[in-house]
Amino acid sequence: MLCVTGWHASGDCGDSGPVIRVAAGLELFHAFALIHDDIMDNSDTRRGRPTIHRAVTTHYAGHRKRAEAEHFGVSSAILLGDLALIWSDELLHTAGLALDQLAAILPFLDLMRIELVYGQYLDLLTVGRLTDDVDATLTVIRYKTAKYTIERPLHIGTALAGVDQAVLDACTAYALPLGEAFQLRDDLLGVFGNPAVTGKPVMDDLREGKATALIARALHHATASQAATLHHLVGNPELDQSNAATVRDILTATDARAEIETMIRDRCRQALAVLDTAPVRPAAADALRSLACVTTERAS
Amino acid sequence: MLCVTGWHASGDCGDSGPVIRVAAGLELFHAFALIHDDIMDNSDTRRGRPTIHRAVTTHYAGHRKRAEAEHFGVSSAILLGDLALIWSDELLHTAGLALDQLAAILPFLDLMRIELVYGQYLDLLTVGRLTDDVDATLTVIRYKTAKYTIERPLHIGTALAGVDQAVLDACTAYALPLGEAFQLRDDLLGVFGNPAVTGKPVMDDLREGKATALIARALHHATASQAATLHHLVGNPELDQSNAATVRDILTATDARAEIETMIRDRCRQALAVLDTAPVRPAAADALRSLACVTTERAS
Repeated sequence: MLCVTGWHASGDCGDSGPVIRVAAGLELFHAFALIHDDIMDNSDTRRGRPTIHRAVTTHYAGHRKRAEAEHFGVSSAILLGDLALIWSDELLHTAGLALDQLAAILPFLDLMRIELVYGQYLDLLTVGRLTDDVDATLTVIRYKTAKYTIERPLHIGTALAGVDQAVLDACTAYALPLGEAFQLRDDLLGVFGNPAVTGKPVMDDLREGKATALIARALHHATASQAATLHHLVGNPELDQSNAATVRDILTATDARAEIETMIRDRCRQALAVLDTAPVRPAAADALRSLACVTTERAS
Repeated sequence: MLCVTGWHASGDCGDSGPVIRVAAGLELFHAFALIHDDIMDNSDTRRGRPTIHRAVTTHYAGHRKRAEAEHFGVSSAILLGDLALIWSDELLHTAGLALDQLAAILPFLDLMRIELVYGQYLDLLTVGRLTDDVDATLTVIRYKTAKYTIERPLHIGTALAGVDQAVLDACTAYALPLGEAFQLRDDLLGVFGNPAVTGKPVMDDLREGKATALIARALHHATASQAATLHHLVGNPELDQSNAATVRDILTATDARAEIETMIRDRCRQALAVLDTAPVRPAAADALRSLACVTTERAS
């Protein structure tokens, strides 16, 4: 959506076929990122269904020893992720772009991919290392989500219509706060959400010990006793429903949950304000306004 | 080497800078393939040094629990492999190619990558499933090695100088038998080689239960007792030096080792014969002759 909207932002809107194929390539790139992310995060489900490595493990569990089936599941998921990345490139190469269009988007594509991997590695380094430094958590968010999920797809879309620095800058000014807001919402849903509605598991982030801004704000305000409880429970792979309820109580009592809601609102407002003066066509600005709401006000 | 030689085969040999950068990109692609392959194969060493996932695990072992350090090592290696693939693309995009050169090689690049993943998956499926069907093992070799390691780098090199079907066909006729010979040699070195010379571990293939042509030929000729021993030992992760010696004795006694040597010689001869009539420049044909010897007569 962001890629196609970016193209509409400044383009003269000819045949949209090639642009949609590029956007589909970005979806496949995202599939690659999620498949490998699920291995790294030890996730059982994604969008309400088994993750790839779990699904393959289950499929082969009857034919191989448990440890072998698990290794086979992870290996297959590594390869399927690789294939999704490679297919995303093939889709781009065969999208029917003019060669100068292809040349225009390649630098943004390379940046997007590299930034994602940097963000994922930063994320990996922080697992199990809770922090009360909210800025550190926002740096991770910027790379793993804001640039990769929002800014670069918009840049790629606008570059398809011709590289215009003023438009690129406006996209960045819109995308970075919105991307942060999106991830902050995602972090809230990962603890307080209803999996039946969101398709997102509600224990994984806590069990894995994800060092989110939510936890950082809670640790900042926590009493010594609350902090000790958070350090004890968050990152404990055996964390149960009752432990999760305890963590949720602390996140609410310390006002961390409310603070994150405020941060989301502020960032969303900032992103929307950019659109008032951005040098983009009005219809595209409207579409970006809707996307801002959709990405940050997801049903809990 | 193959990419640059392919370019010399039919090109007018102007500035070699961009071509060498493309070739360096293929090296980085190969690094990606090896890093992920080492995770899937549970390998401890590569080129005589620790594999990436083992090196990272060791680095963090003092700071984290063993299982956590291992998971962190695998996760980091997945990301580093991803990054090598992404960097290989960036190197290609910034190699300084003319846009029509870039467009000419993209289809071969996409094929090479997809074929590699297919080959790796076939390889994965056969692990621990020994077979006496040598043709089945050669199908895996064709995808995971012959096309990926030899044919496509040559195709990419020649396509940089202009796509010429006769040259492409000659490259294929040279590459497929040579690639098979290369992998057959690799399989022999994986059992009979001297790791101090080859940098290749000599127990991994046996412990992992790799279904090679070597094992297939041995099973084809084996007595019932020899076959039972092979099935018992090959694929046993606890296999020790004495077990390995027993397997080597059977591979020699059944003439499997000698047969594989013959298969290597025949394929090498076939590849060299192609060069006698191939529509390539004589200097390039000479270089391809040397490469054929280097890749199939590696020191044991």
